[in-house]
Amino acid sequence: MGQPEQPDGPEGAKPPLRVGMVGYAFMGAAHSQGWRTVGRVFDLPCRPVLAAICGRDAAAVRQAADRHGWAAAETDWRVLVERDDIDLVDICTPGDSHAEIALAALAAGKHVLCEKPLANTVEEASAMTAAAEAAYERGQLAMVGFNYRRVPATALARRMVAEGRLGALRHVRVTYLQDWLVDPEFPLTWRLRKEQAGSGSLGDLGAHIVDLAQYLAGERLAGVSALTETFVRERPLPVGATSGLSATASAGTGEVTVDDAALFTGRFTSGALASFEATRYATGRKNALCIELNGERGSLAFDLERLNELSYHDGTEPGTHAGFRRILVTEPDHPYLDAWWPPGHGLGYEHTFVHQARDLVHAIAEGRRPEPSFADGLQVQRVLAAVEESAEKNSVYTPIAV
Amino acid sequence: MGQPEQPDGPEGAKPPLRVGMVGYAFMGAAHSQGWRTVGRVFDLPCRPVLAAICGRDAAAVRQAADRHGWAAAETDWRVLVERDDIDLVDICTPGDSHAEIALAALAAGKHVLCEKPLANTVEEASAMTAAAEAAYERGQLAMVGFNYRRVPATALARRMVAEGRLGALRHVRVTYLQDWLVDPEFPLTWRLRKEQAGSGSLGDLGAHIVDLAQYLAGERLAGVSALTETFVRERPLPVGATSGLSATASAGTGEVTVDDAALFTGRFTSGALASFEATRYATGRKNALCIELNGERGSLAFDLERLNELSYHDGTEPGTHAGFRRILVTEPDHPYLDAWWPPGHGLGYEHTFVHQARDLVHAIAEGRRPEPSFADGLQVQRVLAAVEESAEKNSVYTPIAV
Amino acid sequence: MGQPEQPDGPEGAKPPLRVGMVGYAFMGAAHSQGWRTVGRVFDLPCRPVLAAICGRDAAAVRQAADRHGWAAAETDWRVLVERDDIDLVDICTPGDSHAEIALAALAAGKHVLCEKPLANTVEEASAMTAAAEAAYERGQLAMVGFNYRRVPATALARRMVAEGRLGALRHVRVTYLQDWLVDPEFPLTWRLRKEQAGSGSLGDLGAHIVDLAQYLAGERLAGVSALTETFVRERPLPVGATSGLSATASAGTGEVTVDDAALFTGRFTSGALASFEATRYATGRKNALCIELNGERGSLAFDLERLNELSYHDGTEPGTHAGFRRILVTEPDHPYLDAWWPPGHGLGYEHTFVHQARDLVHAIAEGRRPEPSFADGLQVQRVLAAVEESAEKNSVYTPIAV
Amino acid sequence: MGQPEQPDGPEGAKPPLRVGMVGYAFMGAAHSQGWRTVGRVFDLPCRPVLAAICGRDAAAVRQAADRHGWAAAETDWRVLVERDDIDLVDICTPGDSHAEIALAALAAGKHVLCEKPLANTVEEASAMTAAAEAAYERGQLAMVGFNYRRVPATALARRMVAEGRLGALRHVRVTYLQDWLVDPEFPLTWRLRKEQAGSGSLGDLGAHIVDLAQYLAGERLAGVSALTETFVRERPLPVGATSGLSATASAGTGEVTVDDAALFTGRFTSGALASFEATRYATGRKNALCIELNGERGSLAFDLERLNELSYHDGTEPGTHAGFRRILVTEPDHPYLDAWWPPGHGLGYEHTFVHQARDLVHAIAEGRRPEPSFADGLQVQRVLAAVEESAEKNSVYTPIAV
Repeated sequence: MGQPEQPDGPEGAKPPLRVGMVGYAFMGAAHSQGWRTVGRVFDLPCRPVLAAICGRDAAAVRQAADRHGWAAAETDWRVLVERDDIDLVDICTPGDSHAEIALAALAAGKHVLCEKPLANTVEEASAMTAAAEAAYERGQLAMVGFNYRRVPATALARRMVAEGRLGALRHVRVTYLQDWLVDPEFPLTWRLRKEQAGSGSLGDLGAHIVDLAQYLAGERLAGVSALTETFVRERPLPVGATSGLSATASAGTGEVTVDDAALFTGRFTSGALASFEATRYATGRKNALCIELNGERGSLAFDLERLNELSYHDGTEPGTHAGFRRILVTEPDHPYLDAWWPPGHGLGYEHTFVHQARDLVHAIAEGRRPEPSFADGLQVQRVLAAVEESAEKNSVYTPIAV
Repeated sequence: MGQPEQPDGPEGAKPPLRVGMVGYAFMGAAHSQGWRTVGRVFDLPCRPVLAAICGRDAAAVRQAADRHGWAAAETDWRVLVERDDIDLVDICTPGDSHAEIALAALAAGKHVLCEKPLANTVEEASAMTAAAEAAYERGQLAMVGFNYRRVPATALARRMVAEGRLGALRHVRVTYLQDWLVDPEFPLTWRLRKEQAGSGSLGDLGAHIVDLAQYLAGERLAGVSALTETFVRERPLPVGATSGLSATASAGTGEVTVDDAALFTGRFTSGALASFEATRYATGRKNALCIELNGERGSLAFDLERLNELSYHDGTEPGTHAGFRRILVTEPDHPYLDAWWPPGHGLGYEHTFVHQARDLVHAIAEGRRPEPSFADGLQVQRVLAAVEESAEKNSVYTPIAV
Repeated sequence: MGQPEQPDGPEGAKPPLRVGMVGYAFMGAAHSQGWRTVGRVFDLPCRPVLAAICGRDAAAVRQAADRHGWAAAETDWRVLVERDDIDLVDICTPGDSHAEIALAALAAGKHVLCEKPLANTVEEASAMTAAAEAAYERGQLAMVGFNYRRVPATALARRMVAEGRLGALRHVRVTYLQDWLVDPEFPLTWRLRKEQAGSGSLGDLGAHIVDLAQYLAGERLAGVSALTETFVRERPLPVGATSGLSATASAGTGEVTVDDAALFTGRFTSGALASFEATRYATGRKNALCIELNGERGSLAFDLERLNELSYHDGTEPGTHAGFRRILVTEPDHPYLDAWWPPGHGLGYEHTFVHQARDLVHAIAEGRRPEPSFADGLQVQRVLAAVEESAEKNSVYTPIAV
Repeated sequence: MGQPEQPDGPEGAKPPLRVGMVGYAFMGAAHSQGWRTVGRVFDLPCRPVLAAICGRDAAAVRQAADRHGWAAAETDWRVLVERDDIDLVDICTPGDSHAEIALAALAAGKHVLCEKPLANTVEEASAMTAAAEAAYERGQLAMVGFNYRRVPATALARRMVAEGRLGALRHVRVTYLQDWLVDPEFPLTWRLRKEQAGSGSLGDLGAHIVDLAQYLAGERLAGVSALTETFVRERPLPVGATSGLSATASAGTGEVTVDDAALFTGRFTSGALASFEATRYATGRKNALCIELNGERGSLAFDLERLNELSYHDGTEPGTHAGFRRILVTEPDHPYLDAWWPPGHGLGYEHTFVHQARDLVHAIAEGRRPEPSFADGLQVQRVLAAVEESAEKNSVYTPIAV
């Protein structure tokens, strides 16, 4: 509370990595926790410093700086990205401002971490990717914040797929189910406005599962066929500030201009089939990002609501004793786990941001491209665009642009 | 073993219902168990008699008759359906013979129970439905064997949906996952030949989940968008007889002419969204018919691998203590359960056939149309045809013919 | 309904095994289902015939005979056990009559299947065991009905323990939790009267788990330390007949003379530790017989409420991918499963009685002692007696008499 | 990394709470995370400052200070507890030093947070409690670190019990299962030596579950009957420092002087029955602290391996739709959750230490006794002593001293 993270002290010998963050709501809090904690848990080649946080409301951003441990507060992101004492700009704003801020930060010579989705349109994402490529030539790195790659269980799943434990992939099925819009009286937050959010469940939840599915499969989607729907088209306007996924309703109403739910099927380049569902109307499902991969040699399943577990079926075992096993992903040789607690002592949601910071810090220190790159973020955007195009064109199968 | 079920005895006063069954493989065994057991457990208005069983192989059908308790064995279904001492013809053959047998049985004045899918084509199913309608005027009844409506948990789910416990329906997601084709050396049984099976996962598994989804939702699908795939196109020919889902491979190979997997999304007439996946390549999933329904007021979920359980979320409860509850569907006031064991003493797969027999016997005794009717089976067939049409037409959204 | 199982027919060549059953309530119905079904599913060396059923109420037993398919009905068990056309006496009465009937049946030259607990006292059980030993010399066999050994999952667990998959055993923990006595207004059925039931949860549920634990462990308990309790000491008297676990209350009340719950810890002869809990007051637990065994090389866990599953942890695997796996015990090479349905098509509670009948028929045909024998039943009784003795003696550790 | 938490900054107005911590291994890291994070997440009445950390190895403690963010490092706890700039001493050492440090800290006028178990003997715990009582009169507070009271799910469970949702309590069953001693080659760490650890599973795991059971039940144990066992009596000596639950073996061996497992049953003062099992030999169970409470009106169940969930059965509901429900304890009105993430975004193990810090800070600011108090810790110690006494006396039921 109140005191900033100081660049001096006994480990001052390590080079600092001075972070400037734009945005201070849900994602801002989560990223702050990541930056603040990462050096306390992991051995890092440099020392993250929470240099400055930026938001339009001076009092609120000052309070956020104090709360989350940032040394300075700014109210204009243009000023932040130009500060000499910032090495990395971390963008935690709604999607409509990602492109502008990221382009400016890259132009100012900064590394960039940008929350997902990379942008609200393929055009913006393309421009950002081009700028990131150019910046890479100058030694700057850019990463997009698909944090669910950094759950130890999903990282373990990726490792197991890469080891060939699933063999030829046949099926990937993914859902991301939440229920905070079931109540038709829930107000019209920015997440329900196309101009800010770009899309609804699709960009918010769908972007996560498209990235995660492709990451785990180790291959890309070739095409999709989609249905989208807006169940409740008129909602009360919110009163005052909204934070996280909660808000207060007012008397007036406004139009919901994004999808409430998106369903799509698709083919991976290998021929494996995929199905996706993203919705905020799945009563009782709070954060059910569930993914299952079936391959010729085995299967994996994961549920974000039980994020310390990975379910694995080894199809090469004799059937007599085979079955889906629940791997408690808390062993020291599981990804990220050597730095945490003894076996069985689980982690939580926010740890993904600590791990994201860890991986980015290492990439920067080593000068290698972090993953997921802006190019990865652009490709996800192209999948989302194909979903929207298919949904508009009577669900016709729509190839993903390359 | 050996002795038939006799129509005499102390309950001889109850009118007999003399059943003649065509087919004696997996479904034949299951239906036999149903007919043999139903009167031992439920109070029935009449007395099912296992009068005759029919199959082409005289020795095999004789053996099946002895094994399963049928009084007589026939080798020509045409003879069976004409026997005066048969009241009901139970058709357990592959789908390509359903229409011919059912039409003949209806023409011969019999009630008919026909395994699912009703037929291999919409045309056949239409003819069967028309014949069933005409027969109904003559007092004959016809039912299609979607036995998964008769799991106590699904029947309870239907009751809860009908009571309004889910409110406006938003999502239905259904998978039917098996894995017995994962091994490319598994032989080419009749289920993989279009001429006999009509289709692959679609007709076998997809028919079940389309029927179950519509039954539970209490409404019909309006249209679908589909992808289908055959992963392994050439398989060894089987040696000798195949039974159930097992077979032995030979040296020669033949072409798989049906789908291995079918994925489709759709809209219900109310606007609720649906997704379906049927496959035999989901490594580790043995019989995973999983369905979840999300409505404005609640959700229900069911998994056939845990068939004594129903998962229910009451969305009208305060969130503080709400959660998906596991209803152990073994209470006396659960469907079918007053006739079985004390709470917690679960049932199995075959009980669905006992319940199916029970419901059909009551319908016949009361002269009312049993459900699911041939018209219901035809409608499912139309959904499957729309799936195939959409899959052929680049996944374009395809309305279900009415 | 009505017609008995006839000893003639095409398989008449097989020798009959003519069963006479005493008792026709819950256990009577379950055993009937076993005898009626076993020859329809399994290949047997002889042919079970439901020859006669016996109960004191002539009309009720006649009705039960018709319902369950018994050829004759008797009202005096002494007459039944003397009938020449009976080969095996199946005792399904409350525990207080087991000894008398079993002794008479053995004296009359019959094989005997006796429901658990073998008797209400060690003395009775000893006499029965001595009689069974003497009868064995004359070619008669006797078995006690611990049917939970015949769940495919527990039989698989036993096989895995015998294969050495657990290594040196460290822990066995077992609970059998039901909740039908939670309501203090539930009436005083025979199960709550010491003179009929012998004991409460201990004899009813505890007998099952003691037998199952010893069976799975493959070794015997050496001693126990116990607590028992009767939470509700006065209950309404029941009105009319009670069946299964349900009954109707009257205005009068009576004393509960058995334990409501029994907890005990113990040591196996190998030094492994065990804990047991049997209760009818575990609100929400309907039939939760849960057992877990931990050995140096692996662990197994089973829950009767999910009886088609066995949970297995292979401790010899690298920890990275290890975890409790859910074996769906429905594969053809699982115990009893080759005779039933394809993988994933689960069985229910009553199948344990079919399997029990199968194993007993084979034992009789081969002239070898069936398991569990009366001696096994006696040993369980000795454990229960030690539990009662320990509970009376301030929980002091009490060795099991040998 | 490196920089201490500074007491200045924009929130400098809040009074600081200057913490000095003794010990820097597993618990030291966990407590550091708690102190460092609590003010970033919760609104606090004062500002925790990580003032000084203490350990015997100067280099190691200096490194720990840097890593975990402590401003200063000490090598003599006697110096630490006398420092003027320390308000609260947080004791994270093995149990044999708790009493000495706590007594000195209380004598020096500090507040004290002491890890569990409070001490290795009842005598020490009594002295500490007496000192804490005396110190309370001087305005100092003392708390014992039973952090599992601070899992949101257990705190919710306590709230629900206090609301009367379970009614009269009948059963409490608790296990704490780990498996890190299954391998007989695992070395002889301090946790296996009586002189340091006091006892084995009993003090380490048993202390947690005794406290949690009494906390959730809202009442105390009246007596216990116990069995303890040491399965492996000789183990390799460890090489070098051990941390957490891991260590390296050497060639020499030494004797295990603590219990490997402890099982005990007991009675609560209300008459409810309890069973406890603590072991480090439950192959495959990593951190399975499982507790279930059954009351006349409902039941609750919790498993630390799924710490974001609470299972609840409402016994007052009609049985038709009743079942154990899985409450995902991530709603804003769940304990501690208003400060964290949106619903469905789970927490981890370490959050319990953040919550513990939060509650202690509030208690200190308000001058009221924190819970669990040293008196609570003493009472747990008395239960453990009764367990040991019973185990030594042939499991005889042993009342808990008051």
